[in-house]
Amino acid sequence: MSFKTLKEHLHFSGRTLFAEHESSATKTTMKFSCFLPAPIEQIDSAIIWLSGLTCNEENFITKAGAQRALSNTKTMIICPDTSPRGLNLEGEDESYDFGTGAGFYLNATKAPYDSNYNMYDYIQKDLVSLLNESFGVDKISISGHSMGGHGALILGLRNPELFQSISAFSPIVNPIKAPWGQKAFNGYLGDDSNSWKNYDATELITSGNTHPRPILIEQGLGDEFLEKELLTQNIMSAAKDSDQEIMLNEREGFDHSYYFISTFIEDHIKYHLSYLQA
Amino acid sequence: MSFKTLKEHLHFSGRTLFAEHESSATKTTMKFSCFLPAPIEQIDSAIIWLSGLTCNEENFITKAGAQRALSNTKTMIICPDTSPRGLNLEGEDESYDFGTGAGFYLNATKAPYDSNYNMYDYIQKDLVSLLNESFGVDKISISGHSMGGHGALILGLRNPELFQSISAFSPIVNPIKAPWGQKAFNGYLGDDSNSWKNYDATELITSGNTHPRPILIEQGLGDEFLEKELLTQNIMSAAKDSDQEIMLNEREGFDHSYYFISTFIEDHIKYHLSYLQA
Repeated sequence: MSFKTLKEHLHFSGRTLFAEHESSATKTTMKFSCFLPAPIEQIDSAIIWLSGLTCNEENFITKAGAQRALSNTKTMIICPDTSPRGLNLEGEDESYDFGTGAGFYLNATKAPYDSNYNMYDYIQKDLVSLLNESFGVDKISISGHSMGGHGALILGLRNPELFQSISAFSPIVNPIKAPWGQKAFNGYLGDDSNSWKNYDATELITSGNTHPRPILIEQGLGDEFLEKELLTQNIMSAAKDSDQEIMLNEREGFDHSYYFISTFIEDHIKYHLSYLQA
Repeated sequence: MSFKTLKEHLHFSGRTLFAEHESSATKTTMKFSCFLPAPIEQIDSAIIWLSGLTCNEENFITKAGAQRALSNTKTMIICPDTSPRGLNLEGEDESYDFGTGAGFYLNATKAPYDSNYNMYDYIQKDLVSLLNESFGVDKISISGHSMGGHGALILGLRNPELFQSISAFSPIVNPIKAPWGQKAFNGYLGDDSNSWKNYDATELITSGNTHPRPILIEQGLGDEFLEKELLTQNIMSAAKDSDQEIMLNEREGFDHSYYFISTFIEDHIKYHLSYLQA
């Protein structure tokens, strides 16, 4: 499990770099970016950041300002692409919310996507192996935005032993009840909606999945997708009837953009560092 | 001197917004971005940021992380576009280093650019008036990157009463001796190189222009343009024989990118705030 560096820049106390590696899960070359705040042999932990619809490995690392908050620590952040690319599958490039840039962090079961659109396994197997083997990291936390917030929640809730802590910005918490989620799950998983529940954070909590640490969620109340797509209150209701603690910060007037993320990213980094550097 | 807001986002303690206004100097509609860390009636000072080749009003405001450093102050930052756009002049869109996105912060005297490519006047007249009249700002400092660092230096050195302090990242300090500068000055000003000296920071210092505050320059030593285009040592030599103090921070291994800018932007913001909030 090695990687190829495509470009790198000195940045704060370390390096921001762009790279690619081979994925068994997607059977493609996958790109990622990362920030290493210290020489690689000193790095001991990582935050995986999962981006939202239309993003690739560049958006977060150039816009969110996370590197400053990680500077002079031993914790890296790694930002994978949001789907396999360049497969030329039917329908792959027709819309912003399905196919390329919209992998939804699940393992597809419906043709023609089932061979490659396995972003769930890509993250929890290939990317975790890369962190273990190429970066010497064994403590990992997970976060993300929107579709990536959904990804962080389901990956964290289903693998509490693998991820030290979970946070999310503006996550799609109940995709089986949201148009984005319904379209994607139908296209990747088919119309048996029972199979959808494994990839729905609210359903996972309802059916007893929990993570031992409180989940930190940041949500702007001026978010244009809040009522139709994100459905934040659904996971809060589910958590109330479960053992899962969720810390929800509702931010008056903030929207769905990177301006929201960059305002509060330092809080989330510090939250994860409190477990990763404990 | 009013402006039209195109979009805005809550951000840190205030708002990042994108807007446009009419310019007498360029006879076009000019776009800009800005960050207002407080309600507009509380803003009392501004930093003008001038971007480099190929940039527009978006690059700095989305990538540099300056807003965090200005949060909870009364100082805004404003980031104009780097040239007029959409004029369809001959040669305007043929290269990345001339015409669109490459105004070089001078007043063109050569046809067909002389009617509109007046970025020097745009900054020191139109943008300053906008700050005075629409934002209620009277104390202004100036900074920029690469071509924009050149702009900050020449505007500041020629207008020491207008700008409280000057800083620059990776500036083109002696454009009349650099290929980028020679191409641009020839195209905008014609081949009488005597007229070029008014837009060359090293020449301005040599001929006695000074600013009462020390100029802060940040320069990466891994900058791929240092030796051919930026020529940092030329302004240092000129300053040594003049009354102009320059504080040059040379940073081992850092390159010409926004990763360099974002690493050190907080230092520059604090430098300007020390004069603007004095």
